[in-house]
Amino acid sequence: MLTARTTLSKAVSARTFSTSAKLLRTEKDAFGDIEVPDEKYWGAQTQRSFQNFKIGGAREVMPEPVIRSFGILKKAAAKVNTELGALDPKLSEAIQTAATEVAEGKLLDHFPLVVFQTGSGTQSNMNANEVISNRAIEILGGKLGSKNPVHPNDHVNMSQSSNDTFPTVMHIAAVSEISNHLIPELKALRDALQAKSDEFKDIIKIGRTHLQDATPLTLGQEFSGYVQQLTNGVRRVEQALESLRFLAQGGTAVGTGLNTRIGFPEKIAEEVTKLTGLQFYTAPNKFEALAAHDAVVEASGALNTVAASLFKIGNDIRYLGSGPRCGYGELSLPENEPGSSIMPGKVNPTQNEALTMACTQVFGNHAAITFAGASGQFELNVFKPVMISNLLSSTRLLADASNSFRIHCVDGIKANTDKIDKLLHESLMLVTALNPKIGYDAASKTAKNAHKKGLTLKQSALELGVLTEAEFDEWVRPEKMIGPKKD
Amino acid sequence: MLTARTTLSKAVSARTFSTSAKLLRTEKDAFGDIEVPDEKYWGAQTQRSFQNFKIGGAREVMPEPVIRSFGILKKAAAKVNTELGALDPKLSEAIQTAATEVAEGKLLDHFPLVVFQTGSGTQSNMNANEVISNRAIEILGGKLGSKNPVHPNDHVNMSQSSNDTFPTVMHIAAVSEISNHLIPELKALRDALQAKSDEFKDIIKIGRTHLQDATPLTLGQEFSGYVQQLTNGVRRVEQALESLRFLAQGGTAVGTGLNTRIGFPEKIAEEVTKLTGLQFYTAPNKFEALAAHDAVVEASGALNTVAASLFKIGNDIRYLGSGPRCGYGELSLPENEPGSSIMPGKVNPTQNEALTMACTQVFGNHAAITFAGASGQFELNVFKPVMISNLLSSTRLLADASNSFRIHCVDGIKANTDKIDKLLHESLMLVTALNPKIGYDAASKTAKNAHKKGLTLKQSALELGVLTEAEFDEWVRPEKMIGPKKD
Amino acid sequence: MLTARTTLSKAVSARTFSTSAKLLRTEKDAFGDIEVPDEKYWGAQTQRSFQNFKIGGAREVMPEPVIRSFGILKKAAAKVNTELGALDPKLSEAIQTAATEVAEGKLLDHFPLVVFQTGSGTQSNMNANEVISNRAIEILGGKLGSKNPVHPNDHVNMSQSSNDTFPTVMHIAAVSEISNHLIPELKALRDALQAKSDEFKDIIKIGRTHLQDATPLTLGQEFSGYVQQLTNGVRRVEQALESLRFLAQGGTAVGTGLNTRIGFPEKIAEEVTKLTGLQFYTAPNKFEALAAHDAVVEASGALNTVAASLFKIGNDIRYLGSGPRCGYGELSLPENEPGSSIMPGKVNPTQNEALTMACTQVFGNHAAITFAGASGQFELNVFKPVMISNLLSSTRLLADASNSFRIHCVDGIKANTDKIDKLLHESLMLVTALNPKIGYDAASKTAKNAHKKGLTLKQSALELGVLTEAEFDEWVRPEKMIGPKKD
Amino acid sequence: MLTARTTLSKAVSARTFSTSAKLLRTEKDAFGDIEVPDEKYWGAQTQRSFQNFKIGGAREVMPEPVIRSFGILKKAAAKVNTELGALDPKLSEAIQTAATEVAEGKLLDHFPLVVFQTGSGTQSNMNANEVISNRAIEILGGKLGSKNPVHPNDHVNMSQSSNDTFPTVMHIAAVSEISNHLIPELKALRDALQAKSDEFKDIIKIGRTHLQDATPLTLGQEFSGYVQQLTNGVRRVEQALESLRFLAQGGTAVGTGLNTRIGFPEKIAEEVTKLTGLQFYTAPNKFEALAAHDAVVEASGALNTVAASLFKIGNDIRYLGSGPRCGYGELSLPENEPGSSIMPGKVNPTQNEALTMACTQVFGNHAAITFAGASGQFELNVFKPVMISNLLSSTRLLADASNSFRIHCVDGIKANTDKIDKLLHESLMLVTALNPKIGYDAASKTAKNAHKKGLTLKQSALELGVLTEAEFDEWVRPEKMIGPKKD
Repeated sequence: MLTARTTLSKAVSARTFSTSAKLLRTEKDAFGDIEVPDEKYWGAQTQRSFQNFKIGGAREVMPEPVIRSFGILKKAAAKVNTELGALDPKLSEAIQTAATEVAEGKLLDHFPLVVFQTGSGTQSNMNANEVISNRAIEILGGKLGSKNPVHPNDHVNMSQSSNDTFPTVMHIAAVSEISNHLIPELKALRDALQAKSDEFKDIIKIGRTHLQDATPLTLGQEFSGYVQQLTNGVRRVEQALESLRFLAQGGTAVGTGLNTRIGFPEKIAEEVTKLTGLQFYTAPNKFEALAAHDAVVEASGALNTVAASLFKIGNDIRYLGSGPRCGYGELSLPENEPGSSIMPGKVNPTQNEALTMACTQVFGNHAAITFAGASGQFELNVFKPVMISNLLSSTRLLADASNSFRIHCVDGIKANTDKIDKLLHESLMLVTALNPKIGYDAASKTAKNAHKKGLTLKQSALELGVLTEAEFDEWVRPEKMIGPKKD
Repeated sequence: MLTARTTLSKAVSARTFSTSAKLLRTEKDAFGDIEVPDEKYWGAQTQRSFQNFKIGGAREVMPEPVIRSFGILKKAAAKVNTELGALDPKLSEAIQTAATEVAEGKLLDHFPLVVFQTGSGTQSNMNANEVISNRAIEILGGKLGSKNPVHPNDHVNMSQSSNDTFPTVMHIAAVSEISNHLIPELKALRDALQAKSDEFKDIIKIGRTHLQDATPLTLGQEFSGYVQQLTNGVRRVEQALESLRFLAQGGTAVGTGLNTRIGFPEKIAEEVTKLTGLQFYTAPNKFEALAAHDAVVEASGALNTVAASLFKIGNDIRYLGSGPRCGYGELSLPENEPGSSIMPGKVNPTQNEALTMACTQVFGNHAAITFAGASGQFELNVFKPVMISNLLSSTRLLADASNSFRIHCVDGIKANTDKIDKLLHESLMLVTALNPKIGYDAASKTAKNAHKKGLTLKQSALELGVLTEAEFDEWVRPEKMIGPKKD
Repeated sequence: MLTARTTLSKAVSARTFSTSAKLLRTEKDAFGDIEVPDEKYWGAQTQRSFQNFKIGGAREVMPEPVIRSFGILKKAAAKVNTELGALDPKLSEAIQTAATEVAEGKLLDHFPLVVFQTGSGTQSNMNANEVISNRAIEILGGKLGSKNPVHPNDHVNMSQSSNDTFPTVMHIAAVSEISNHLIPELKALRDALQAKSDEFKDIIKIGRTHLQDATPLTLGQEFSGYVQQLTNGVRRVEQALESLRFLAQGGTAVGTGLNTRIGFPEKIAEEVTKLTGLQFYTAPNKFEALAAHDAVVEASGALNTVAASLFKIGNDIRYLGSGPRCGYGELSLPENEPGSSIMPGKVNPTQNEALTMACTQVFGNHAAITFAGASGQFELNVFKPVMISNLLSSTRLLADASNSFRIHCVDGIKANTDKIDKLLHESLMLVTALNPKIGYDAASKTAKNAHKKGLTLKQSALELGVLTEAEFDEWVRPEKMIGPKKD
Repeated sequence: MLTARTTLSKAVSARTFSTSAKLLRTEKDAFGDIEVPDEKYWGAQTQRSFQNFKIGGAREVMPEPVIRSFGILKKAAAKVNTELGALDPKLSEAIQTAATEVAEGKLLDHFPLVVFQTGSGTQSNMNANEVISNRAIEILGGKLGSKNPVHPNDHVNMSQSSNDTFPTVMHIAAVSEISNHLIPELKALRDALQAKSDEFKDIIKIGRTHLQDATPLTLGQEFSGYVQQLTNGVRRVEQALESLRFLAQGGTAVGTGLNTRIGFPEKIAEEVTKLTGLQFYTAPNKFEALAAHDAVVEASGALNTVAASLFKIGNDIRYLGSGPRCGYGELSLPENEPGSSIMPGKVNPTQNEALTMACTQVFGNHAAITFAGASGQFELNVFKPVMISNLLSSTRLLADASNSFRIHCVDGIKANTDKIDKLLHESLMLVTALNPKIGYDAASKTAKNAHKKGLTLKQSALELGVLTEAEFDEWVRPEKMIGPKKD
């Protein structure tokens, strides 16, 4: 039988995790010995998690930004621990070198664990500790798995607990992705829409409320609404970012900071700031920082709002571009792929579709984050991996979809001025301009006559004899209907 | 047959809307004549909506803050229109008097419409126009329904469109409710939790991570996490409030401001600020203000985050108070109602239940708002009533539930110090303190022996002979485990 | 200052709960004496809840179907208890009379409690017990508040616990509302759409995929898709109903049935079946029936699916009716209220707006129900009131909105055959029919030429000389494009 | 600077999509020539999508079950087309061979496209057409990219449109995954819980309602509630499956079936049934099948309900296992990984954490699916890829997490009978049994005295002299409190 199922042997294969490794190495932890592929730097605890959590497969591996952020954090911790006199400089240097490789994404194939593991992310923290210690051991000429001279817990995890490192890494990853990718893309999209708003500033078109013909506005004004949505969106994301700049590091197991030194938390925040070029602070209350991830819920709320904006924009533009003959047809969207080999002009608004699909994913991610964020217990929220996984998904989807939508759609939008003009002048709504000239009753009669007989307003007015053609042309001027009275 | 159904004749009866009114009055609109109860100020368009939208019944009437805010806005508009020379001062005065009555909640029985009406809220805008014009006519000695001398459209709705009044009223209502009720209640709850944190600052207890026994902290530290969540929550809500301070008024039908005068929008914002004592501004872009309600989605996102915080707090406290014999039992929650007539000490954590139920409603409301907020089309979002209804519901539920939870639960929480102390000392986790004294191996053996035989740590240590009783008492000191090392 | 706030004194006023009652009566419970308004039948526990849970106000009172269902259940319980020899027939008769009044909605003003109370609904169960006992006492000539000869716990609540009565009442209320109102309305809407599908069966129109012009179909075919959605929707709701027919009654405090008699659960289910005319069974496992409300989550999932269907239908129809000049304009929707006094033909699709707003509320309610349903703990889910409140809200909104949409919109939809025909023949998509006649290349050239020059297909083909007018008229026949090849 | 960002060059790398291929091949489509890596079978349209939709990276590639299902469908279509005399048998055979390779997952590296592409899934349909045609060409000795003798559109896509193939594939994938993986795993988990319920049937324990001590039940009874939830869950998923068995195939572009033959849809359903061993039918209405995906929303609703069940079960079990000293401690969960190297007995309930995290993801996925499912327009829903991606994610997460939770947690749960018994007998709730013996008042006094002084019930009763020790031991028998009275 053919089946749609992913083969189990490929369950975790997003990166290359050879399970047919010829050479195995024995690693050990408190539970005893366990064999790991010798070509991998990971150790016993990673291996146990790999075996015990076969959930979700390749699509659910811990997101790359989390792994890289572990590299950043572990490097910072080694440096600070040495500064505080707690860690031997030679070991520290090897750890920092190894951690840098993790931060640079060079060791991704050594991080096989999935999101659906322990809810504290402990296993990913140990994965980082184990990979970095083995790599550092290698650098120092030691034997993999020996924990000598670099011990994953004693040295790489010094002064740390999974309970503070994982939330720290969540924030580093989120701030990095949002700052370096999402915000620039939102700004670029805003600017692209602004350019179109400028380009279209003199094109007067029919407005639509309740989807029904309404008074006119310029196409530039219509796009200015989108620009404002993006401007606000950037501000929303920037505000949410502020909450994410606070790091849990220093809380250790339950928030008290047991086994750290005074000053350690602040120094870590400084060091991470230096390493990333992004501002971080130590969290004012470590109990909150471990037990709740409200900052992630808040940030997701900002992304949710941005998604609502983009959903509206994407929808409007595809409707305005609908046709070519039987839709609104006011815009022409760029043709990027064959829509149909038969029908010229058939452009499927595929970028709008990708964008709005991405928005629905963000809405869903937000629901998952909210549920998870509300479910912390006592000193720890144990939904950490699923929260950061969803937040990074939303961040990336919005950034990538904004980029794609901008480049492949917005930049190339053209106004179909003939169609826009035709619709504008067919509309009966312009009759409003005649009220002060021929009176409400005659104007109303004109509009009703036009609607009933399918005439233009001018035809109707001339047929009824309520004004001359010259008068009509002078009085019915959409360009005077696109702003408040000046007097 | 008995049936669980609401009788249809009571479909809209939250306020008293007599449908068996003996006296009827004829009102008219563009569709012709229609009879309304003579004891009501509403007119033809309200009556049509009342008849055409029998959806949801009493629970779904337009929220009171929206109606009151219409009173505020209509008063402001009459004043500004007169200042601008557009409205006769005598009419204006009568309109302002009538509008004040609406703002004060005196005419609620004249607002029968439900949320599920036209998506622009036009019918509620007309309801306000009709009630105020008829009441003003009455004040001026005219005849109800005559539209003379005060016309609902020409005078009460002067320079306005439903498309800008309804979003304006949404923001006035939301800012008022959030500022006057939600924020004060969140602050009061934060302060109550702070008081408890202070009260409990010297009570050392076992920490719990993954629900499992962990290193100790003080009960005050535990509560400090809740305080921080509320402090952040207040900040989140205050930030979201800033977006709601911008008013759509002046955009009229499609955002262009057709039929208003330059300066009208700014003056309205000033006047509403004066009337409410709350800061408002005119929206920088009216197209966005009519076509999208991202500010509402944003605000709901902030409330959603606060709900996530409160859900965690409410949950923690009920678990810590669980028992009296077979639960955690560290806290005693106030007894407000009989739990059981048999079992003394059985206190059901009913306030926590009400609070967490309110949070789930806020999560649901947020989903509804997000969906509705993303669904605007072209120049208008036509999900306005359902958006503001849900936002006001979330605001009120969080404010009321915070109030109730504070007064009837938090203020009366007592620490069961005996139980807390017993658990703390039964825990095996304190063994951590022995590592530097007797070495990791002996410490570990001590803990394992205790666990296996059900001994206390001290019993185990003495049995194993790894230290003396005096040494144990000196070394195992939880009070030294609740912070970082000082050196 | 004017404020948008609901006055606190009106916090719970959906029904008439006079708080300025002149006469007070002393009631008592395990906590001691408490005064209640003498005109009300409720007792001490209701009064305490009324005072301790000021959350949400009038909009949040316990839904009427829940209260009526308590009447049904308490009547059934009295009857069964007497049959089993446990309850004095004279008391039983008085209880049944009083309970019938509750079931008929005659005593709604005696049920002041809100949804946000204890999560087990205990207080509403006691409200029912107290009201029925006092009313029965009155019938029997006793003194209100004396608990003699009818005791709220010993007699009205005999063999019951809040923990089984409230879930029982949840299911009675839901099954009643869904069976008696929602399903009939969904069927009626389906039939109305079927009638339109039949009426429109010969009207050929352009199809739209990706919003772009596509191959033709009939308007009847298009509506047949909506009919299928409703047919499926009815089936979905009927299926979900099956899970709700199981009653928790008989589980008492924790599901074991302590203090009931063997046979009691089955007899209750039979009696409720008789009283309501709707089929109920006793739940096969009472532990599940108290501790989880998966049946409610399941039913809400069915309503959520129906809402997704209705959202699509409501949206399609308003777009197809958009215009009158500048939209799709294929349908004319009935005019129910003035759209604008100026513009004839401006019909706002207000019923579609109300319908789709109702759908967004259902989506939100479903999120709340899901969250609450997942949050049960050990032997009890304590989110019962918020779950049933949201389920009943969704049920009623879908029923009412379907009714309103059918009567005020669907039944009156007219096809604008001229516009439909014009769009169909303007479309370039019909060129597909020429492929087998003149070859793909010539057909493609014809379409491209038409698109480029804004010609009709026929004009283009004649201009290019690829066929004769007679050939075009014979070959390009949309009516041959609306089904598979017959051979 | 170190950054957390995924390198752009690795954006789509879940499978191995070498972008540094040395050899390129020219493929062409209506847009002209384009180069593709010569080692890949994909063609021009796949390449364009690959370049135009850089959204989401490796985690967002089209799910494997969708790609395999395309193999199944294309094989079936080739067979049926040949049977109907439309497709040359030799070409058909090559197509079927190539399609089988796709179905078997052998060509996954040739499917590089992501979910966030065109909303109809057209590009993935073309990806399948292109890969199969090129592979078939290779089999037949032709030249890749020549479209000769096997054309991707004319032969592989014969009688099909993306608009009907993609929804068909959605259903094949979902039915396969649910039938072959989810349902078996849910049943296995149910059976494992049933085995525990049986094992624990004689262990009497304290019940907990509102988290407070309540009347006793057996641990077996408690687990029987979980079993019932799973039994219902299996039924829910099986019911939802029925809706997914209907295939859209045969609707082609807009649902009319233009360009197919009569009989084609039914034959496809039969053939897919044969190939998969799973029952499929042709959809009764193809307009609905293309324009709405209510069946997916419905199925997701079933998964959402199952997730709510599992969330409750996972939560209960981790609380019951909390401790070892300072929690409920009634259960011992298996130790799978080191919790802490210091504290023996510290077992983190990591499987419960993974399970409940998976549930939150399912809740989020459901929100995304609902939103997308409601957003179809006219003849097509263009949120197809995001809908199926989320449904498959939910299916897999629930299947995998159920498997992991069963094997690594449920199967190894042990009851801590000492602790259970101790708590049971410490509870004051057993006093209920004394009511009929010594009267309510004396029983109540006994309980209150015990609570106040911290005594056991027996100590209290003896101290008060209300009964003898022998009487107490005879009367207070929890085993008589776990069911209804037998008489």
